[in-house]
Amino acid sequence: MVYQFSERVKSLKPSAIREILKNSSAPGIIPLSAGNPAPDAFPYDDIREISKSLLEDTPVEALQYSVTEGYPPLREHLRKYMGEKHHVGTEADQVLITSGAQQVMDLLTKTLLNEGDTVLCEAPSFIGSLNTFRSYRAKLRGIPMEPDGVSIEGLRQALEEEKNIKYFYTIPNFQNPSGITMSLEKRRQVYELCRDYNVLILEDNPYGDLRFSGEDLPSIKSFDKEGVVMYAGSFSKVISPGMRVGYAIGPQEVVQKMVVCKQGEDVHSNIWAQIVCHRIMSQRDYEAHLGRLREIYRRKSSVLKQAMEEHFKPLITWNEFEGGLFAWCTLPEGVDMLDFVKRGTERKVCVVPGTAFLTDESEACQAFRINFSTPTDEQLREGIRILGEIVREMV
Amino acid sequence: MVYQFSERVKSLKPSAIREILKNSSAPGIIPLSAGNPAPDAFPYDDIREISKSLLEDTPVEALQYSVTEGYPPLREHLRKYMGEKHHVGTEADQVLITSGAQQVMDLLTKTLLNEGDTVLCEAPSFIGSLNTFRSYRAKLRGIPMEPDGVSIEGLRQALEEEKNIKYFYTIPNFQNPSGITMSLEKRRQVYELCRDYNVLILEDNPYGDLRFSGEDLPSIKSFDKEGVVMYAGSFSKVISPGMRVGYAIGPQEVVQKMVVCKQGEDVHSNIWAQIVCHRIMSQRDYEAHLGRLREIYRRKSSVLKQAMEEHFKPLITWNEFEGGLFAWCTLPEGVDMLDFVKRGTERKVCVVPGTAFLTDESEACQAFRINFSTPTDEQLREGIRILGEIVREMV
Repeated sequence: MVYQFSERVKSLKPSAIREILKNSSAPGIIPLSAGNPAPDAFPYDDIREISKSLLEDTPVEALQYSVTEGYPPLREHLRKYMGEKHHVGTEADQVLITSGAQQVMDLLTKTLLNEGDTVLCEAPSFIGSLNTFRSYRAKLRGIPMEPDGVSIEGLRQALEEEKNIKYFYTIPNFQNPSGITMSLEKRRQVYELCRDYNVLILEDNPYGDLRFSGEDLPSIKSFDKEGVVMYAGSFSKVISPGMRVGYAIGPQEVVQKMVVCKQGEDVHSNIWAQIVCHRIMSQRDYEAHLGRLREIYRRKSSVLKQAMEEHFKPLITWNEFEGGLFAWCTLPEGVDMLDFVKRGTERKVCVVPGTAFLTDESEACQAFRINFSTPTDEQLREGIRILGEIVREMV
Repeated sequence: MVYQFSERVKSLKPSAIREILKNSSAPGIIPLSAGNPAPDAFPYDDIREISKSLLEDTPVEALQYSVTEGYPPLREHLRKYMGEKHHVGTEADQVLITSGAQQVMDLLTKTLLNEGDTVLCEAPSFIGSLNTFRSYRAKLRGIPMEPDGVSIEGLRQALEEEKNIKYFYTIPNFQNPSGITMSLEKRRQVYELCRDYNVLILEDNPYGDLRFSGEDLPSIKSFDKEGVVMYAGSFSKVISPGMRVGYAIGPQEVVQKMVVCKQGEDVHSNIWAQIVCHRIMSQRDYEAHLGRLREIYRRKSSVLKQAMEEHFKPLITWNEFEGGLFAWCTLPEGVDMLDFVKRGTERKVCVVPGTAFLTDESEACQAFRINFSTPTDEQLREGIRILGEIVREMV
């Protein structure tokens, strides 16, 4: 049998980065390359108690087919909660529950994009989303990041130059991988610019609740009166990623098409998980839970920062980050970044090479990404110490 | 804001059938149009106990990120179980866990199909799968069904005539909607024919374990030595559809591409549900459970058959069915099928018009589909009585 694959699948190339990282989950490895929530961040007792009660009291609801749009009480609660707390969602918007926020990226792309159409994204940006866009044969155009968020001039230029732009993809809070938070001023500018060019904004906010210093900023979606923004939320970082529950809040006309696409992909998302998320939000002290998470990540990030102060300075620099799970570090000129990452792996410390997050992996890049939520404190300190040793050997 | 949708989404037309069925879940409706497993078919106690123990003993495993291919012990168990019990899967095959079997249809189509490529399917066939194929802009070609399965002559003709055929989609056991089971002889012929034309077979078998009379037949996949068949299995009808767990067993080279596509869609499937399915299969008496299900559906189908004997004969005829969840009924010439379905809905009895299952909904069709797993016995008897009344009014 000779298999004839689709053009979209043929265009997905094997990645040099995957080769480097393929041993990153082997025993004895210090996993600074992952992106898992800290295991002590899960609300175990709540999940256990809620699961027990729903499987005893209303098991048919939890186990039978459900509707594609999502568990109605969760949709209703999210509409209210996100509206009141974050000014996300208007009367013209609709809530769709998805199988993780990744599915929001997938469904929006399926709904809007013809092969060859353009997606604007931050450079660097989250590799998982970039790969989803690529799987629909999007043309990706990266816009440079600045310390206060995406370059407005760069965005304006891209909007002028590119044809068939379907949306601008942004992670405004503690961006993965750069850690950068977009300033309030830029959020307004991004909104107005995209609106004026009739280009949707896909605002991905998986880490917004994980701010451990500084002040919360309004989401881009909170400015949206004209149906410009599709907001992607996720329970992966605040309840559990294994449950695969995320959501989209966006213009009804677009969400309704996404619902049709979702029906063809997985009919609906796991209903047990949707009910658990709904009850944690509505029947437990959800704000106290979020406060506890921030405390966990504040502490872990300070372990990382302290180790970097001690072992990285002055050779390796890093972006300031006020939340999220990642630190974005830059090597001094003259140090070969891929070689540095390889040497780390040989000494059992895995980080992700910065090129993984570019629209073109072959571009020059001196940066790498560290995750501080997955490793233990000890692994963090030891990993940073070893990376510091390696860079000193290489200069 | 003016939204520019993709061509694939623009081509999804609103359906006349959805209009007819949109009130089918209203209170007081007799739901002969659904496809839900009977609520007493779920293994409640097993799910409760397993869920409790996994959330107590290994909660991190159940709640953390997992791998795209699926929970390794479930994949391993399925490989062994399906190999030993059903001769499904060879050394050259790989198992992928999906978010319901619907995702197998989606991922295989994404992996193989360029816009405009052809998918061969049985006529009639399952509307959910047809819509998935349509969402990738497949050209659908229906092959007529005969009492012992798809027309071999029709299949041969289509294989000769069509260009860029990517696969032939079939449900060999108790097909949805026709109830037809493909004969052993035809299974062999289908296998050999598709192999000779270098066309994959997508064998969808959601109901195989729900045979309540006659003898089990080998799957088409069991003949597969050359990597011709992608087998789609599902836990929706045998454990719980709300969990959204299905699986693909097929040629490694194809499955590996499907894994990359799945990563971009939902990263992995809900892990709690995967563990529950694994433990029900491996730690409980799974065969006894399947026996209990067959008993439930044998009984319910006999309630339906008895009611049809009493109220349908001689005007409405139906295909014999030895398993599954559906009966396919044909109205006498001269009775307008869509009008019949509409009158049923007005009298609160919902069935699905046969045209819903055609590649072209505007084709002539005298048939409609009845589901006997969702309604209670009383609803079944009452619904069939009313439908019998309606047809007598119409002749």
